Amino acid sequence: MPDPSRTDSEFRFSHDLRVRWTEVDLQGVVFFGSYYSYFDIAQAEYFRALGFTYPDAFVTPDCDFFIRKSGCEYFGSARYDDELAIGARVTRLGRSSLTMAFAVRRGGDTLAAGEIVYVFANPASRSTRPVPEGLRAAIIAYEPVDPNA
Amino acid sequence: MPDPSRTDSEFRFSHDLRVRWTEVDLQGVVFFGSYYSYFDIAQAEYFRALGFTYPDAFVTPDCDFFIRKSGCEYFGSARYDDELAIGARVTRLGRSSLTMAFAVRRGGDTLAAGEIVYVFANPASRSTRPVPEGLRAAIIAYEPVDPNA
Amino acid sequence: MPDPSRTDSEFRFSHDLRVRWTEVDLQGVVFFGSYYSYFDIAQAEYFRALGFTYPDAFVTPDCDFFIRKSGCEYFGSARYDDELAIGARVTRLGRSSLTMAFAVRRGGDTLAAGEIVYVFANPASRSTRPVPEGLRAAIIAYEPVDPNA
Amino acid sequence: MPDPSRTDSEFRFSHDLRVRWTEVDLQGVVFFGSYYSYFDIAQAEYFRALGFTYPDAFVTPDCDFFIRKSGCEYFGSARYDDELAIGARVTRLGRSSLTMAFAVRRGGDTLAAGEIVYVFANPASRSTRPVPEGLRAAIIAYEPVDPNA
Repeated sequence: MPDPSRTDSEFRFSHDLRVRWTEVDLQGVVFFGSYYSYFDIAQAEYFRALGFTYPDAFVTPDCDFFIRKSGCEYFGSARYDDELAIGARVTRLGRSSLTMAFAVRRGGDTLAAGEIVYVFANPASRSTRPVPEGLRAAIIAYEPVDPNA
Repeated sequence: MPDPSRTDSEFRFSHDLRVRWTEVDLQGVVFFGSYYSYFDIAQAEYFRALGFTYPDAFVTPDCDFFIRKSGCEYFGSARYDDELAIGARVTRLGRSSLTMAFAVRRGGDTLAAGEIVYVFANPASRSTRPVPEGLRAAIIAYEPVDPNA
Repeated sequence: MPDPSRTDSEFRFSHDLRVRWTEVDLQGVVFFGSYYSYFDIAQAEYFRALGFTYPDAFVTPDCDFFIRKSGCEYFGSARYDDELAIGARVTRLGRSSLTMAFAVRRGGDTLAAGEIVYVFANPASRSTRPVPEGLRAAIIAYEPVDPNA
Repeated sequence: MPDPSRTDSEFRFSHDLRVRWTEVDLQGVVFFGSYYSYFDIAQAEYFRALGFTYPDAFVTPDCDFFIRKSGCEYFGSARYDDELAIGARVTRLGRSSLTMAFAVRRGGDTLAAGEIVYVFANPASRSTRPVPEGLRAAIIAYEPVDPNA
C-alpha cells in the first residue's frame, strides 16, 4: 500500500474529476467502493495519455486485460461536489502483469491511496499473455518503473 | 488476504444475491468495484443477523462506523444473472476497529475474497471510539474471533 | 403514466428487494435514477417467471431488446433498508415493441410508478424486428394485455 | 417530451462529460438508467453556472429540492469513451416547481432527450414551498422560460 505522506509528489499523471451526487452516501461522504471507480477512470486516462485507448489500442481476440487484486486505504473523506485529483502511475511491470498505484487528493490532502494488479490473459482460456510490447515501451518511456515484478 | 482454498467451509454467515444487469460491464463480467458493494450488503446482513441494523442499533451522535481499508483478490468472474453466496465473518475485533473477511462464491467456486477494516469514530472529530459493547458481545457469541487485534 | 391509486391490485407479478446503501443519497432517500434499476430487475424477473431468461431465451444475433422510452412518477421516498415490492406487468404488446408498467410499493404505499417502452431490433441495422412468437404467447397467457399497441 | 429535431440549437447551457466504463452494460451501450445520472450532473452544473451550488445556495432546513417526475426518450446509443454534451435548460417555472429539459448529444446527433419535474418542499412535512426568489430571478435572467407552469 503506498505511503500517503509520499504520494503528493510522486504522480507524473493525474486526472481531475468532481464528486457526483450518486457517489455520495447517507453519511455525506463518497462510498468507499466508489474510489475504485475513480481508479478505473484514472487508469483509462493514464493509458490514453500514453496513446493507448481501451479496447482498440491493446486488446486482441486472444488477449484482454483483467484485474487480479485491488486495495484501498482511506485517510479522509471526499464529499459531494469536491474537486479531486486522481494520481496514477505504474509501479511494477511484469511479463504478463502490471501494478498501478493511485492517490485521491483534494488540495494538498491525500484522502485515499490504492493499488490495482492487472493481468493480461486470454479471455477464453484464462492463460496469461505477455504485456503488449508497445504498451510496455510506452510506460517505460513515460516514467521509471520497478523492473522486479 | 484470505486463502481462497479455505474459504468455503469457513463462513457461518452467508447472504445470497443474484448479479444485476447494472453490475456487469462490457467484458461480460461483474465490474471489479461491484464486489465491494456485495461485501457492503453482506456486512449489513451479517449485522442484521446478530440483531444490529444500521444505523439505529449502533450509531449514536458521537459514534459512527467508517472504513479504513478495503481489499479484494479475484480468482474468477461472476457473470450476469449468476446466483452468488457472499460469505462474511469477523476475523479481528480490536478496541475501536474490526476486520471482516468476505468470499464471493458461485456453487463450489470462490470467485473473489475480500477484507475490510472498519473503525468506530466520532464523525466530527474523527477520534476513535470503542466498538459498542453489545455489538462486541454479539459477535463473540456468534463466532470465534481473533483476540489479537 | 399509471394511476398510483390503481396500481396496488393490478400487478400479478411482483419482485421483492431491499434498498441497498449505494442506492441512497445524501437526502436519505433512494436516488431518483435508482428506481429505473429496480424496474430493470423486475423486468428480468418477470420474463424469468414466464420462462424467458435474458439473453439466451430470446436474443438472437439479428434480434436484441432495446429501450425506447422510460418514465417515472414519484409519490413518496424509499429509504435505506426498506423492503420494497416492485410490481411489473406488460400493458401493451405491439408488433415489435412492448410496454411495461411498474410500481414501487412499501407496505400499502405506492412510492413510484413507472413505464418503459421496449423495442426488438437488429442490433447492427437498428431496423425493428417482431416480438419473438414464444414470448408473445407467454405474455398473453400470463395476463390480459391491451391489443391496441 | 422534447422534440429531438429541435434540441440541438435550443440549449444555452451544456456540460461535457465522457462515458465511463461503469456506465456501459453488456450490450456495449450506456445503461438506460445512467442517462438520468447525466441529467442530474447537468442540472447541478446549470445551477452552478447561475451561482447556485447545491445545497448551500438554496436549501434551508424547511425547504429542499425533490423530483416529482422524470422521463427520457432514446434515439441512439452512447458507447464507452464517447464524449457527450449534456444540454440543460429550464422550460417551466411554477410557484413551487420547475421543469428542466435535457439532451444528450454526441457530435451533431441527439442520442436522448429527457425531462425532469422538480418541486421545492419542506423535507419533513412534504408541503410545497415557493421556488427561492433569488434562484427564480437568476433563471429568468439567464434564459426565456414559459411562465404558464
